Amino acid sequence: MTTSDTADLQSRLQRTVEAVGASGLDGLLVSPGPDLRYLTGYDAIPLERLTCLVVPASGPVRIVVPALEVAAAMASPIADLGVEVVSWQETQDPYVLTGSLLPGAQRVAVDDHMWAVKVLALRDAMPTALQSPAGPVLQELRMRKSAVEVDSLLRAGEAIDAVHAQVAGFLRTGRTEREVGADIADAILAAGHERVDFVIVASGPNGASPHHELSDRILQAGDTVVVDIGGTMPDGYCSDSTRMYSLGEPPSAVRAEFEALREAQALAVAAVRPGVSCESIDAVARDHLATAGLAEFFIHRTGHGIGLETHEEPYIIEGNSRLLEPGMAFSIEPGVYRAGSHGARIEDIVVCTEDGFVTCNNRPHGLVVVE
Amino acid sequence: MTTSDTADLQSRLQRTVEAVGASGLDGLLVSPGPDLRYLTGYDAIPLERLTCLVVPASGPVRIVVPALEVAAAMASPIADLGVEVVSWQETQDPYVLTGSLLPGAQRVAVDDHMWAVKVLALRDAMPTALQSPAGPVLQELRMRKSAVEVDSLLRAGEAIDAVHAQVAGFLRTGRTEREVGADIADAILAAGHERVDFVIVASGPNGASPHHELSDRILQAGDTVVVDIGGTMPDGYCSDSTRMYSLGEPPSAVRAEFEALREAQALAVAAVRPGVSCESIDAVARDHLATAGLAEFFIHRTGHGIGLETHEEPYIIEGNSRLLEPGMAFSIEPGVYRAGSHGARIEDIVVCTEDGFVTCNNRPHGLVVVE
Repeated sequence: MTTSDTADLQSRLQRTVEAVGASGLDGLLVSPGPDLRYLTGYDAIPLERLTCLVVPASGPVRIVVPALEVAAAMASPIADLGVEVVSWQETQDPYVLTGSLLPGAQRVAVDDHMWAVKVLALRDAMPTALQSPAGPVLQELRMRKSAVEVDSLLRAGEAIDAVHAQVAGFLRTGRTEREVGADIADAILAAGHERVDFVIVASGPNGASPHHELSDRILQAGDTVVVDIGGTMPDGYCSDSTRMYSLGEPPSAVRAEFEALREAQALAVAAVRPGVSCESIDAVARDHLATAGLAEFFIHRTGHGIGLETHEEPYIIEGNSRLLEPGMAFSIEPGVYRAGSHGARIEDIVVCTEDGFVTCNNRPHGLVVVE
Repeated sequence: MTTSDTADLQSRLQRTVEAVGASGLDGLLVSPGPDLRYLTGYDAIPLERLTCLVVPASGPVRIVVPALEVAAAMASPIADLGVEVVSWQETQDPYVLTGSLLPGAQRVAVDDHMWAVKVLALRDAMPTALQSPAGPVLQELRMRKSAVEVDSLLRAGEAIDAVHAQVAGFLRTGRTEREVGADIADAILAAGHERVDFVIVASGPNGASPHHELSDRILQAGDTVVVDIGGTMPDGYCSDSTRMYSLGEPPSAVRAEFEALREAQALAVAAVRPGVSCESIDAVARDHLATAGLAEFFIHRTGHGIGLETHEEPYIIEGNSRLLEPGMAFSIEPGVYRAGSHGARIEDIVVCTEDGFVTCNNRPHGLVVVE
């Protein structure tokens, strides 16, 4: 924990206090997860015992912590942030305790990932308070990455690129998706990630299901293979990148379709700059695929934000009129899905900058043909 | 997916429908997580797009699924269970869709781990419905393990025992907790787990924090070391076991304290049988430590249930008068925590049987002295 990290966290907490007041909320309640880590640096284990940061519109920021986790909490950056620790014993009711820190509250926001059982216990312990999701407050902060955060995403991108550099070596006819996936998972950790988040090896017809992960299907000559992989780095930031592979040169129709997809992805990336809307980036990819006669096969949004979560704001989707700003980071990942036959997707993480964009993923985008 | 597995899932769903009706609920809403896996075998990735099983008090069981995850859903056991899939497109509102499946509902339960943002969106989409947590309905089913589930827990226990068998070889003065932890994490995967859930290597004074995980502290001669580790097996069932290690023979006072702890843990395990209350098991461990003058240093409950989650019902804690029944599975893990000095804990997973108990963890309980 360097001084500058502490200053960064203090700035986040301060801006959150201001945003809570500006939103007309009496307080914000944050349980373990990405929001708590963003605000305090405390990477608490999400368990059934209540840990809850209480950010009031005014007054001290406090955190309710089970007695047996106080030492872990104090070993985190919260000790340097002036956050007051309020501990509870095994047989106490932590929800009543939390409610007592915001007496008479009328409006409280709870972090988007708080477990239902905690949301509803807080509802019952704070009967005067109407609950809303904290997303509208916290996403505004979290979606605009600081220079430190952009650097973290660039390093995560380098790590997953190093894995894609090895994937062609893992792919051979006769191996199963699961065997290839196990090699990739090892490589994700070896490349510096702390955790493997997902490994998609979708071969042949399995490629037509965007969220297929791994199966016992045996790779065959002629298969195209979607490889979409990501992990979490030790500092909590996530990687996510997709490249396309093929066991031998595919039929010319599949090759032509792939080239249209490659153009669509490149055009959408090139369109990223401040002031452009999320939906217009989606439209760039979608319109290009439409001109190639592939509109009906692109069945999902173009991308999702990324940071301490793999999927967060901003979403690059039709209907999202939000304008891009420097520091926003998200995937650009159009795809083509042919049920029963095959699928294709290409994905980079892109960060909007003052004058355009930088890409976190920099492996070549062409179809990697494994002979 | 064997026929008997399908039958097991069908029985769970059927009992859930009955429990929903008996509870006076109009329906139960279950998002991806352990409850969904328990009820349908569908191990959906928990993402922001809504996937939601809708179990009404009467009528068909349905599942709301994003269009691009329908293939993944249909590849799961739900295809064999007669659960009707209701898909939604990227720009549709899935909460309104879900609400339309329980028109006019007055009382609905949501799964305990559902994200707040989904709970509150369902609240707004179903304005006539009062929400409650699903725990009281589903925990009653989940805490009574079937023979198949007990077998899964026994296999998870064998896997983590195989890791503890290697731990002494990882511990040496001069290594950091983090280095030892990395070896343990590798061994957890090599032993057959699909995922590492936690690795606690708490040496010397770090042992006094029950939820300390890993640090850069260098192991020193004379340290006692708490090693508490667990993972998830490919079938979703969890392991969790703690053993105590020491770098050289500890001082006689520490040794005596450890022996009192070992007795307390063994006595609590031996007390497990149907009809005994959870709190009385807690009391057996607590009372024995009290007679050794250690009451004030045992700062947490004696145990937690385990299954598809590491922590679930039943909790072995003061105030829980629930009586044990065959099939209930939980940890017995008393500890002694001396702030600034050291800590100790011994933990086995135990399953209550018709005439007593079986233990999932069967490594020797004595202090493992590494010379």
